[in-house]
Amino acid sequence: MRDTRVGPTGFHDVRETNLGVVLRAVRTLAPCSRAAVAAATGLNKTTVSSLVADLIARGLLRETGESSERRVGRPGVMLALDDRTIAAVGVEVNVDYLSVVAVDLLERALVTRHIAFDARSAGPDACARRIVSAVAEVAAAPALRRRAVIGLSVAVPGLVDSPNGVVTRAPNLAWLGTPLRSRIEELMDRAGSAPVPVLVDNDANLGAVAEYRGGHLAHTADLVYITGEVGIGAGVLMNGELMRGSAGFAGEIGHVRMVEDGPECGCGRRGCLEALAGIEAILRAALPDRFPGGALTRADLADLVETAVERAAAEDTVAVEALDTAGAWLGRGAATLVNLVNPGAVVLGGYFVPLAPWLLPACRAAVRELAFAPGAGGCTVEPSELGLTAAARGGAVAMVDAMESGRLPLPAPPRNGAAAAADEGAS
Amino acid sequence: MRDTRVGPTGFHDVRETNLGVVLRAVRTLAPCSRAAVAAATGLNKTTVSSLVADLIARGLLRETGESSERRVGRPGVMLALDDRTIAAVGVEVNVDYLSVVAVDLLERALVTRHIAFDARSAGPDACARRIVSAVAEVAAAPALRRRAVIGLSVAVPGLVDSPNGVVTRAPNLAWLGTPLRSRIEELMDRAGSAPVPVLVDNDANLGAVAEYRGGHLAHTADLVYITGEVGIGAGVLMNGELMRGSAGFAGEIGHVRMVEDGPECGCGRRGCLEALAGIEAILRAALPDRFPGGALTRADLADLVETAVERAAAEDTVAVEALDTAGAWLGRGAATLVNLVNPGAVVLGGYFVPLAPWLLPACRAAVRELAFAPGAGGCTVEPSELGLTAAARGGAVAMVDAMESGRLPLPAPPRNGAAAAADEGAS
Repeated sequence: MRDTRVGPTGFHDVRETNLGVVLRAVRTLAPCSRAAVAAATGLNKTTVSSLVADLIARGLLRETGESSERRVGRPGVMLALDDRTIAAVGVEVNVDYLSVVAVDLLERALVTRHIAFDARSAGPDACARRIVSAVAEVAAAPALRRRAVIGLSVAVPGLVDSPNGVVTRAPNLAWLGTPLRSRIEELMDRAGSAPVPVLVDNDANLGAVAEYRGGHLAHTADLVYITGEVGIGAGVLMNGELMRGSAGFAGEIGHVRMVEDGPECGCGRRGCLEALAGIEAILRAALPDRFPGGALTRADLADLVETAVERAAAEDTVAVEALDTAGAWLGRGAATLVNLVNPGAVVLGGYFVPLAPWLLPACRAAVRELAFAPGAGGCTVEPSELGLTAAARGGAVAMVDAMESGRLPLPAPPRNGAAAAADEGAS
Repeated sequence: MRDTRVGPTGFHDVRETNLGVVLRAVRTLAPCSRAAVAAATGLNKTTVSSLVADLIARGLLRETGESSERRVGRPGVMLALDDRTIAAVGVEVNVDYLSVVAVDLLERALVTRHIAFDARSAGPDACARRIVSAVAEVAAAPALRRRAVIGLSVAVPGLVDSPNGVVTRAPNLAWLGTPLRSRIEELMDRAGSAPVPVLVDNDANLGAVAEYRGGHLAHTADLVYITGEVGIGAGVLMNGELMRGSAGFAGEIGHVRMVEDGPECGCGRRGCLEALAGIEAILRAALPDRFPGGALTRADLADLVETAVERAAAEDTVAVEALDTAGAWLGRGAATLVNLVNPGAVVLGGYFVPLAPWLLPACRAAVRELAFAPGAGGCTVEPSELGLTAAARGGAVAMVDAMESGRLPLPAPPRNGAAAAADEGAS
């Protein structure tokens, strides 16, 4: 049954929606006048003035006084986003680290932390505690003083039931049905923190958001981000929107079978892309002397990647060939995405970034060879420029976006003052 | 740059949009009163009355007089779609046949034609001529007499640049860069036919539309339709919208490499799904005695499929094993879609339908085994109930949808009479 309801659903909704519309217009146009906002949004000038007054009272817009519109007479008062009052925090949990990024309203990083942490050995409870303490540390950082934290997002490598905040399945963390959001909320409540909305999502999805909003291929509307950790996942944006699928489980390129009877994967199957080109598989092949008994302490991954880079740079044959082979598998995985999804760009993230010089030639050759569309349907394959904090950053940015699009509450205006006055004149 | 323009773009646009909104509301609610349309759409009653008058004048709505709303006093006049005045025509070109379907405004088939036609041997020019003559035959059928044909769509198995009406690449037809739309328009013009909008699109995309609008899994918002012809393609609907990708080339599951050094594919590569589980590959394996020299007349496909069905039903080991093997490959392809796109349903179309009893067990087992999400993320695999006319029917339905959503013009109202009067009172 199609929803044929198109009319306004209520005064409050319309006003909240319009606050977001004005906020987004100023993000695009700033510095800009109220008249320019009215022209761009189609809202009338009185409504825009009232909405702007409300947003100023909420600490989301400010007047700059600078005018880029040259006119005779008084310069117009210009508007810009107020980057001084709010922060959004994103955390990424991965096999061997936690990343934390806080951004302001302009989506610029205020604080970035990379914390070596063996999440698999720690287990979900200890991990939730470490997340909460890491967020508290970041919230206490000088750059966040006097800012309201509008939301916290947590990126996890695995299947995430985001509406319920549950990690359905994350084999590399050995998590199954972990109610991460409620656990974090409980811990924050017990620590006496002010409650903030918590979002749990897949790491690749949030990495894709980070690339779309702030990477070097920003605003490529059909973009795929591929995580390069022990696990491999894809975040797929179509027309700038995350493709989530019917149960939120889209993008699991790491568990597409590439070959019959291939190496065993963390998921229990054989021949998955992750078992052929995940970072652990790469390191085992590139640095065989470092895995005499096959054992790997996951907290060593960053050091081992550095060693692999050094050896490849020194033209060590074993390392170079291992990276070339992994690059070709990665290319075959990317070609599968190109054939099925036809993105404008595939961005390789995580540990694939330092290894890119040796992965990319074979990867790009495989994409060219295996894509059915001429010229790979216009798709380029590029390393990310956001490093290991992409998913955390994308999560923080997703909270800003959620606020602007009305899925998270805007900060409340003060009890009295400009906003109350503005409300009375609202249309 | 995000588009921040949200306001109305002009009086005419708003009215055209609202005509479509009312048409869709009546489609959902019929039989229904004007008041019910107003309530469902949020438009005010005067506006709805004016729009309804306009739609009645254009022959798209009618008053039924029947009332399902039981009230004291006079029965309310009820509205329904007028299924007597327009028709939309869809054609599918495939390797061994043309299908033509004409539908009315209720998307019910008025005429269905299946024409054996060797499109590959004929070449694009002869094929365009056959399309035009087939459409003329259908338009002259008694069921279409006195109907206005609002549009013609042509489904093609291959990469289609739909905005330009060009078939970029269709290896099974041996077409490359074929300007099919302009060729058809030219031929229709030369034949003195009234000009109608022509849409060229990928066959799998239009098959997916047919399933979504009228198949037995209708309204599954995340749905994949897989064509079962010489070629294999996927039409992917996410939230009821076609996923097209950045250049319109999404869904090419047939050319995903399944295995290194596999059999040769029509695209020139090896190991593509199509070379393992396309209908020609299936028939070669199931009926080896029918391919002594390896030659295949493509116009024989339908007969050969019938023979394969007969032999499998008679438990012929070679046929049964060939279908089981192909089913497993098909399942691996479907599992790739499940992992990447997480659909609610995968529908197998075309010649896969009569072969389904022998393909499906291995296919479903492979999907269960190879999907990373528990329970295949909720995905079921089902044969289509629309037969070989799915893509043609989907194309016809897509024209009706394009009209309702303002991408195709509504039929013009008569010069004088009700519509002109209604226009004067329009809001």
